[in-house]
Amino acid sequence: MFRDSGRPATPVRKPQQDRSRATRERLISATIDVLATEGWSASTVSVVAERAGVSRGAAQHHFPTRESLITATLEQTFDELTGRASVMYETLPEGPGRVEAAVTRAVDIYTGTQFKAALQVWSAAASDPGLRDLIRPLERKFARAAHRMTVQAIAGDTDDPGVHRLVQATLDMARGLGLADTLSDDSARRKQVVATWSEVLAAALN
Amino acid sequence: MFRDSGRPATPVRKPQQDRSRATRERLISATIDVLATEGWSASTVSVVAERAGVSRGAAQHHFPTRESLITATLEQTFDELTGRASVMYETLPEGPGRVEAAVTRAVDIYTGTQFKAALQVWSAAASDPGLRDLIRPLERKFARAAHRMTVQAIAGDTDDPGVHRLVQATLDMARGLGLADTLSDDSARRKQVVATWSEVLAAALN
Repeated sequence: MFRDSGRPATPVRKPQQDRSRATRERLISATIDVLATEGWSASTVSVVAERAGVSRGAAQHHFPTRESLITATLEQTFDELTGRASVMYETLPEGPGRVEAAVTRAVDIYTGTQFKAALQVWSAAASDPGLRDLIRPLERKFARAAHRMTVQAIAGDTDDPGVHRLVQATLDMARGLGLADTLSDDSARRKQVVATWSEVLAAALN
Repeated sequence: MFRDSGRPATPVRKPQQDRSRATRERLISATIDVLATEGWSASTVSVVAERAGVSRGAAQHHFPTRESLITATLEQTFDELTGRASVMYETLPEGPGRVEAAVTRAVDIYTGTQFKAALQVWSAAASDPGLRDLIRPLERKFARAAHRMTVQAIAGDTDDPGVHRLVQATLDMARGLGLADTLSDDSARRKQVVATWSEVLAAALN
């Protein structure tokens, strides 16, 4: 009956494509989880497959090597963070609280689970030139997007090199706060640091 | 003849103590080297012993476990960095360049080989509660010392909470700059960020 409804034939294959995409998503999400909670050495295709509830064969069909799994995970994570950040920045309040809201959101990116996962890859890449070559372009693309959006959020369209550098310093501080949060919950201290930084930044921008 | 010279007996044992201390130093220095260049997983007592040119037995006499080797290395590293920083701060220029010089020295600490080595331990500790418990007190002690010395360097004896928080933010930025330097040489960009932040910091302190 459905076949006679005049719909094109291709959508019939869709459920399989959806399943394949869902498997891929589950594997990537499990990779972030394993990286953030068990660290780099535990993050192999077979451990991730088990965590995702996916057979090892199916996992290897999507990601034949650990490198392909890690690269795809970082790629998607950075895209998601960039997408989420651009929506967040669109909803920032106008007025005096805007700079602090923008700094808070930048810091949120660097203190989340996805950053903790990325940190494990980063740290492994420090002693692995092959991995470093794979992740450096992803990291650069993400850093540029974060910088562009934060400049836009706090100062609009501007080429002012002073503003661009202040935003770089802000993102470096956010990265340092992310690192400080890996060994223990640093949220109370972080809140004060963000408030202080935002005040100084707002004054410098005026 | 020496025994009859009237000297006490203990100094005769000194060369052996010196040798033992030198072996310990060589092992700690090799640990920093292996951590920074080959990463956490490579940093075992036997790999470090080989790098140091020390027999495995001698290495295990000093450090029976990997944890004891890593803890001793961080302890000594943080003590050395604190000692070196306190001397550096004593030689800071007076006048308008003082804040930038202090920020530069703080950033130097977080971009050196010792920080890169510590970062590997940090990253491993994120998924290892036992290691985390061992290194957290060392890290806290170091962070407090770095904070105290930087406050002293840029503002002298002061309890001003605003100054204390500005210095915290500065050290968070320094930590973020350290992280940014692990995948590639970030020194050119870092120099600009340090100059920009130092200017803002100096203005905020006045």
